Amino acid sequence: MKKRIGIVGAGAAGLHLGLYLRQHDIDVTVYTDRKPDDYSDLRLLNTVAHHAVTVQREEALGVNEWPSDQYGYFGHYYYVGTPQPMQFYGDLKEPSRAVDYRMYLPMLMRALEARGGKFSYDTVTADDLEALSEQYDLLVVCTGKFALGQLFDKQPENSPFEKPQRALCVGLFKGIKESQIRAVTMSFSPGQGELIEIPTLSFNGMVTALVLENHIGGDLEILANTKYDDDPQAFLSLLLDKLRKHHPSVAERIDPDEFDLANGSLDILQGGVVPVYRNGHAQLRNGRTIIGLGDVQATVDPVLGQGANMASYAAWVLGEEIVAQSVYDQRFCEHLERRRQDRVTCATRWTNFTLTALSQLPPAFVQFLQVLSQSREMADEFTDNFNYPERQWDYFSSPERIGNWCNKFAPDVAA
Amino acid sequence: MKKRIGIVGAGAAGLHLGLYLRQHDIDVTVYTDRKPDDYSDLRLLNTVAHHAVTVQREEALGVNEWPSDQYGYFGHYYYVGTPQPMQFYGDLKEPSRAVDYRMYLPMLMRALEARGGKFSYDTVTADDLEALSEQYDLLVVCTGKFALGQLFDKQPENSPFEKPQRALCVGLFKGIKESQIRAVTMSFSPGQGELIEIPTLSFNGMVTALVLENHIGGDLEILANTKYDDDPQAFLSLLLDKLRKHHPSVAERIDPDEFDLANGSLDILQGGVVPVYRNGHAQLRNGRTIIGLGDVQATVDPVLGQGANMASYAAWVLGEEIVAQSVYDQRFCEHLERRRQDRVTCATRWTNFTLTALSQLPPAFVQFLQVLSQSREMADEFTDNFNYPERQWDYFSSPERIGNWCNKFAPDVAA
Ligand SMILES: Cc1cc2nc3c(=O)[nH]c(=O)nc-3n(C[C@H](O)[C@H](O)[C@H](O)COP(=O)(O)OP(=O)(O)OC[C@H]3O[C@@H](n4cnc5c(N)ncnc54)[C@H](O)[C@@H]3O)c2cc1C
Ligand SMILES: Cc1cc2nc3c(=O)[nH]c(=O)nc-3n(C[C@H](O)[C@H](O)[C@H](O)COP(=O)(O)OP(=O)(O)OC[C@H]3O[C@@H](n4cnc5c(N)ncnc54)[C@H](O)[C@@H]3O)c2cc1C
Repeated sequence: MKKRIGIVGAGAAGLHLGLYLRQHDIDVTVYTDRKPDDYSDLRLLNTVAHHAVTVQREEALGVNEWPSDQYGYFGHYYYVGTPQPMQFYGDLKEPSRAVDYRMYLPMLMRALEARGGKFSYDTVTADDLEALSEQYDLLVVCTGKFALGQLFDKQPENSPFEKPQRALCVGLFKGIKESQIRAVTMSFSPGQGELIEIPTLSFNGMVTALVLENHIGGDLEILANTKYDDDPQAFLSLLLDKLRKHHPSVAERIDPDEFDLANGSLDILQGGVVPVYRNGHAQLRNGRTIIGLGDVQATVDPVLGQGANMASYAAWVLGEEIVAQSVYDQRFCEHLERRRQDRVTCATRWTNFTLTALSQLPPAFVQFLQVLSQSREMADEFTDNFNYPERQWDYFSSPERIGNWCNKFAPDVAA
Repeated sequence: MKKRIGIVGAGAAGLHLGLYLRQHDIDVTVYTDRKPDDYSDLRLLNTVAHHAVTVQREEALGVNEWPSDQYGYFGHYYYVGTPQPMQFYGDLKEPSRAVDYRMYLPMLMRALEARGGKFSYDTVTADDLEALSEQYDLLVVCTGKFALGQLFDKQPENSPFEKPQRALCVGLFKGIKESQIRAVTMSFSPGQGELIEIPTLSFNGMVTALVLENHIGGDLEILANTKYDDDPQAFLSLLLDKLRKHHPSVAERIDPDEFDLANGSLDILQGGVVPVYRNGHAQLRNGRTIIGLGDVQATVDPVLGQGANMASYAAWVLGEEIVAQSVYDQRFCEHLERRRQDRVTCATRWTNFTLTALSQLPPAFVQFLQVLSQSREMADEFTDNFNYPERQWDYFSSPERIGNWCNKFAPDVAA
């Protein structure tokens, strides 16, 4: 008898899982509140870059629709706005790639449907889950950061914050010239905020995502509260002003006459993310075990671009374990957690650590930035490790580890 | 600078670790209370069979002194003394091998010393550990089931018992003819006890280890309390009597005229093991992290022959992590536990489960024995999985899983 899996939520987590399971001839039903045709009219959802590890999974799933050699980017430029600014570059071993999720998710949904995945379009509530769980061998909940997360217990030791750590202003823009190498730029304005610039494919071709991670109470916070729609020109000139002051390595590539939202007024998203880490499984009152996946399990601030990448990783591992096992009980969860946990917790901890380090600038972290700015080899490693958050955490989990990492590259710097 | 590791205890755990580290040019000092020359005069320590996974590690460490093709055994005979007795056999894919630890451990100690491992012969107390820990990059405690374990917190969820579950009577014997295939015999006398017969190399060649796992309060318990030294003939005839009654498939191969302890009166060991599972690391008052390894972390009853095998596995993983990392902190422990935990907890749980199942004989377990007795393929798998306790636990962790496993082989049985 075919295994039957129910998936609640059609984000990257649910769809990568569904596609994996269909490749293994497992019966899949996805419950979601949005149809593929709805997406093109939505406000910008996020600005997600997929690292090479995720692109490889897309390739294996047969959904690498926008190949990285054409649409991808090849490294990170870093700018640190200290009194004596530091500017440097690190390579990715394989390119990353960002596509507007308003194109990406419906593409995945159509692919999954074409491969026999069933879709049921409706809003699912917590009360529906018991009945749903009894229709499937396993029910997976991946409804993102807003819905149903509270079913899974929060892990306090991995959830240090109760509030958003940044006031976000995120948009897709035109009028920004590409850097010499097509790359992300990460610009750090000490005490004020970070800007992540991402070359992104949207409806009408390549555009530029700007993710402004503004410190709360700082000079840039206003960008999260000023509405584009109220007065587009006023918003754009305020933004340009702030970019020139705090993120000059991006501002200098902007053509003020062309600078605007790329497709229109829905291309901007403002607000904040509350980081949280939850248990990856829970038991319903009927005794059934349900699995939490993606943002439901671990929601991170977008500063390091980890959320969707770890969701896809966890979906793949969950898919493998569903195929390998046939009883979805406590022991099943043990296998699953043992395999996904290190990446998911480390992406979470590294992101949470970085949020704090970039606002408090402790000495070990400043030393790290200095050595990084001087050693291309270290910058390459740091950049490529965006694929492997657990390796970053091997370096960042204590001042001693950061120190050792720096010492390894200090000879380069001294030479 | 060379890494320096301190190891307290020179059992299989400490010595496999030491040998691994010396292969990687790491400085090793072993603290132990016994010299190599002491061992030949000791009472029998245990009757340890090394499964192929452990023999492969010995091969890699260059200490596979007694090769399995010559000294090993090739499978398990099973005898279940139900009213209609069940008798069957399962193959090991690669042979296991048992050597008297009074020969084995000094061989390892000499090998380690020859390769530059330092030895310090003294009894270490809990109070010594802080000072010791400061002399090394990392201190590993592997003093066996009697000493220093209480430094590591007990995990109640993996420690179901407060007392020994069997009254053990263990000895090395002569006068027992080998089975047709050189193999272990596992004989189960429902309600009374188990007997594990192991072809074993001792000082004067191949002998037979008998591990009598007598149920407390049953007809066989007396064997754990009757002293050989008080009256050797009386002991032997009592034993022969009980074997004939409860373990006939072994008794029938005994020549009463030859039957005796193999080397002399030190070849017998009586008592009981309290199973316990502890955290694998702890923090000393000076802030240093110490690692618990082998029986210190997990002590199991010998019924399934897992203790030394999992100790060796955990030693190897610890060795790899010591080589790979250089800061021995919380994150180090995370990597270590993630890698060793599944095998160690599953060996523990499978053993604890089996102790209870063999005395209470729940229906799912009886069904398992019945299907096992009828399906050679299943018996082969079960037997070879003594190498992989985590796979056994995939089958035994719930009645549903046992049932599924049985169903897989039921067609064989019906056919
Ligand atoms: C500005 C920004 C930038 C980001 N940048 C990156 C980046 O560069 N790299 C990266 O890896 N991550 C990034 N992220 C994070 C990433 O967007 C998320 O981690 C990822 O999209 C989560 O995927 P998911 O499948 O878990 O949830 P979602 O994508 O949120 O999907 C949830 C799904 O559930 C459906 N749903 C919700 N509620 C219900 C309900 N009650 N009933 C039925 N269906 C429901 C939704 O319609 C949707 O289909 C960014 C996030 C933001 C906000
Ligand atoms: C009857 C029996 C049969 C068994 N059969 C099997 C089997 O078939 N397969 C299997 O895998 N396992 C078996 N075991 C279990 C196995 O013997 C143990 O799991 C294994 O030997 C534990 O190794 P260890 O290195 O952790 O500890 P040990 O071998 O106990 O070594 C402890 C070391 O620490 C030293 N030491 C102790 N205290 C101090 C101190 N205070 N200071 C300094 N040094 C100290 C000791 O001298 C020794 O060198 C059996 C056990 C028994 C009792």
